[in-house]
Amino acid sequence: MSNDTLQIRRIGIDTYHENVAYLNRECAFYRAEGFQALSKIKVCANGNKLLAVLNVVDDSSIVHSGELGLSEQAFQKLNIDEGALVTVEHAEPPVSMDAVRRKINGERLSQDDFTSIAKDIAETRYSKMEMAAFLVATGQNNLDRDELLYLTRAMLDSGERMNWHESLVADKHCIGGIPGNRTSMLVVPIVAAHGMLIPKTSSRAITSPAGTADTMEVLAEVNLPPERLHDIVRQERGCLAWGGTAKLAPVDDLLISVERPLGIDSQGQMVASILSKKLAAGSTHLIVDIPVGPTAKVRHMRQALALRKLFEFVGDQLNIHLEVMITDGRQPVGRGIGPVLEARDIMQVLENNPDAPFDLRQKSLQLAGRIIEFDPDVRGGQGYAIARDILDSGRALAKMNDLIQAQGAKTIDFTPGTLCHEVCADQDGIVTHIDNFQMAKIARIAGAPMDKKAGVDLLKKIGDRVQKGEPIYRVYAGFSADFKFAKTLAADDNGYRIGVEEHVLKPLVAF
Amino acid sequence: MSNDTLQIRRIGIDTYHENVAYLNRECAFYRAEGFQALSKIKVCANGNKLLAVLNVVDDSSIVHSGELGLSEQAFQKLNIDEGALVTVEHAEPPVSMDAVRRKINGERLSQDDFTSIAKDIAETRYSKMEMAAFLVATGQNNLDRDELLYLTRAMLDSGERMNWHESLVADKHCIGGIPGNRTSMLVVPIVAAHGMLIPKTSSRAITSPAGTADTMEVLAEVNLPPERLHDIVRQERGCLAWGGTAKLAPVDDLLISVERPLGIDSQGQMVASILSKKLAAGSTHLIVDIPVGPTAKVRHMRQALALRKLFEFVGDQLNIHLEVMITDGRQPVGRGIGPVLEARDIMQVLENNPDAPFDLRQKSLQLAGRIIEFDPDVRGGQGYAIARDILDSGRALAKMNDLIQAQGAKTIDFTPGTLCHEVCADQDGIVTHIDNFQMAKIARIAGAPMDKKAGVDLLKKIGDRVQKGEPIYRVYAGFSADFKFAKTLAADDNGYRIGVEEHVLKPLVAF
Repeated sequence: MSNDTLQIRRIGIDTYHENVAYLNRECAFYRAEGFQALSKIKVCANGNKLLAVLNVVDDSSIVHSGELGLSEQAFQKLNIDEGALVTVEHAEPPVSMDAVRRKINGERLSQDDFTSIAKDIAETRYSKMEMAAFLVATGQNNLDRDELLYLTRAMLDSGERMNWHESLVADKHCIGGIPGNRTSMLVVPIVAAHGMLIPKTSSRAITSPAGTADTMEVLAEVNLPPERLHDIVRQERGCLAWGGTAKLAPVDDLLISVERPLGIDSQGQMVASILSKKLAAGSTHLIVDIPVGPTAKVRHMRQALALRKLFEFVGDQLNIHLEVMITDGRQPVGRGIGPVLEARDIMQVLENNPDAPFDLRQKSLQLAGRIIEFDPDVRGGQGYAIARDILDSGRALAKMNDLIQAQGAKTIDFTPGTLCHEVCADQDGIVTHIDNFQMAKIARIAGAPMDKKAGVDLLKKIGDRVQKGEPIYRVYAGFSADFKFAKTLAADDNGYRIGVEEHVLKPLVAF
Repeated sequence: MSNDTLQIRRIGIDTYHENVAYLNRECAFYRAEGFQALSKIKVCANGNKLLAVLNVVDDSSIVHSGELGLSEQAFQKLNIDEGALVTVEHAEPPVSMDAVRRKINGERLSQDDFTSIAKDIAETRYSKMEMAAFLVATGQNNLDRDELLYLTRAMLDSGERMNWHESLVADKHCIGGIPGNRTSMLVVPIVAAHGMLIPKTSSRAITSPAGTADTMEVLAEVNLPPERLHDIVRQERGCLAWGGTAKLAPVDDLLISVERPLGIDSQGQMVASILSKKLAAGSTHLIVDIPVGPTAKVRHMRQALALRKLFEFVGDQLNIHLEVMITDGRQPVGRGIGPVLEARDIMQVLENNPDAPFDLRQKSLQLAGRIIEFDPDVRGGQGYAIARDILDSGRALAKMNDLIQAQGAKTIDFTPGTLCHEVCADQDGIVTHIDNFQMAKIARIAGAPMDKKAGVDLLKKIGDRVQKGEPIYRVYAGFSADFKFAKTLAADDNGYRIGVEEHVLKPLVAF
């Protein structure tokens, strides 16, 4: 073996989104090139290139001095055989970090700046640290609306774009923040049963106790290869899948993998994230749901209106027919919070079970009605009635069952986690407030969404009368550590306020 | 072995500042607790605790399902024997990230917020991503001067604090940005020869081609255990050591390990970093050197004055006697840029070599003179003359040799890298401008500071007359890839402007 090359060795270590390369400290390359631990290197093998973070190894049984080890994901990405020869060099830092530094210094960035940032992120030239710097620098009010348009366009252009070859491809999206708000799983079967194309792909939970993909996964496979997804959509007019496997707006996924652990979530990035994903998925018509309430992401009507304008501005520039619905975000929607409990609520609505949560049904019908009115053949104002007929007649349930079969049915089991704790009212009165954040936090600490059976089941909602000692909700968990933390959290602040009639929180929006 | 514990295995992988733990995918813990790759876990072993990032392993020869592997640094930090039993649980995200998120949202933080952030960072609860978020959120103009005071105090309180039991402990610090500006290596021998205590610890280069520690390392050991450092200072009245081994303001080191690869550098963080380190090192009197020039860190006099006020405000609140000197930052100081070349310049000045760079000598004497005037027995205005006498008489050289012997002398070799490229004037005229950034960049790309012999040697400075084809500087490198990149960079922009007398850049400050 020449002195210039190293043999590839596959190292069975899972480093998630981060490529890691392992070099023995005695390796001639390591010594000659003045690499440092955690610096980035470029691995080249006949045409294929890969950037990876360097870990230095002192144990020759892991890699010896003539080898370059690659973590599982890095090995797969480089896509060459074990034992093949590669060369290694210093990776230059991504050029577009200059633009990020200019942004940190308060400058306004151009379309070209955002395009090169998105390109470098898509090609995994950015470390997690660099992505965090970009996210914080462009967070909050640091982007004006033109910059937001540039960012959205750059994120859209960073990946593939689907084309359904139809003039009307519908979609809906909620900005999040309201536990239990799984309307997509009702809207899609209703709209698809009406015959409109609604190929819905969703994310997993970022900071919430469940995303649509997590909840749908209780009923069916959601991790579908793109060809299979296409076939299902063609046959069923819709789907409820996880969006992560398609190569759409890959920058968005990478940024979310940093936003998630950091727990940051800015309005500008939200608009760019949502619109780039929807446009990449080929959507032509989109309803955006913005819940407003004192513990929602959007707390005041003026904020909701400002956000609506941002969506409209960027949407119009990028040629998507977009409508914003500002909805009631005072409290969780439905009863269950957590994948299994939410899936149970949805099936109750679809089955027209008299115990089904009424608010989840109503909100879903309103959203579905607005989407159905995108259909040029539907008379203005008739959407809601059409949606209701589809649900009441059982056609939505039938469509849901078709989707479940097509995606791959799971053995359905709505039994929640075996550890159960009842939280009870500490006085007589009426439920005046429920804190969305606190309820989401309790459900997450209990284990949702990783533990699908964990979560919270609400027995009382705003306006309900309760007696002292009566249960107001149940916490479910599967693991004792999670259960203990969740009980402590609920004991500290149970998220409910009980008072008199006059203090009941009124909705900020009328329906 | 019980089902609740795992055996510690030391994994010979160097992960630098980041603790990494390796769990087999088949491990009962991994499966039961719903860990995710790259999530953070807490490792507990009779009283000792450690936070680590989780890597999931599929190769039982690295770790089997009953073991927990720890990277080299993590193993040393946990400080228990291989084979000892530990338990593992989810690490909760650091509570103080709530404050960082509030800062991202534009809130003002309190002393308590900064104290808890610094504590969590010092206890390595922050990932690099989280530190990047903190740095960007508190960067640029995002801290007011009270917040800056809180941050400095929090960083100071995060580590140990030295006490020299003397009423006057002198120090100097330059904010950086000027290549070749190694005045500390002249100021320390002069001031120590005068008898004042000046225990100077320096950092390695962050974004520059050499730090004082990198350059001193050409002559002597700089990586000294704290007890040894103390003995040297007691005996010699000074030292020129690397500050990283002492446990002073550890938060600063951790933040720098993120700032360095990100290439970010804000004024507020600079003030906090410098003052916390100096106070922790026990300094009572400090001269801060702020070079100003069009390609310096500080470009305008008004910025230099604003920065001076920040230093004075925080310094006064924290009880350090601080004076700011605003200096000429139009061009590099001395001739050499890079550890070996800069060390050569310094020894020439100390040896009163007639070819020694005059600007390096003059600036060092001015700084040393100001420090000597901190001595209550020195009459105002006499500092410079005292410093000059110490240098001219050879007492500074003798002191430097004593310091080198005390720290551990190296075999001195001022031969620069074997690969040499001469950059020549493209026209007749006078050197009107030299770009500090570009010269630093060329020296870094050539391999400095990792490759100590790499760098740039300036043959002409501002005001010098040159003829077309005459060499203006030489680029030295040790490795061909570095050499190639550096030549390309210099061909693209050599950093010099040559013109007529009237265009020669005038200093922004008078001396």
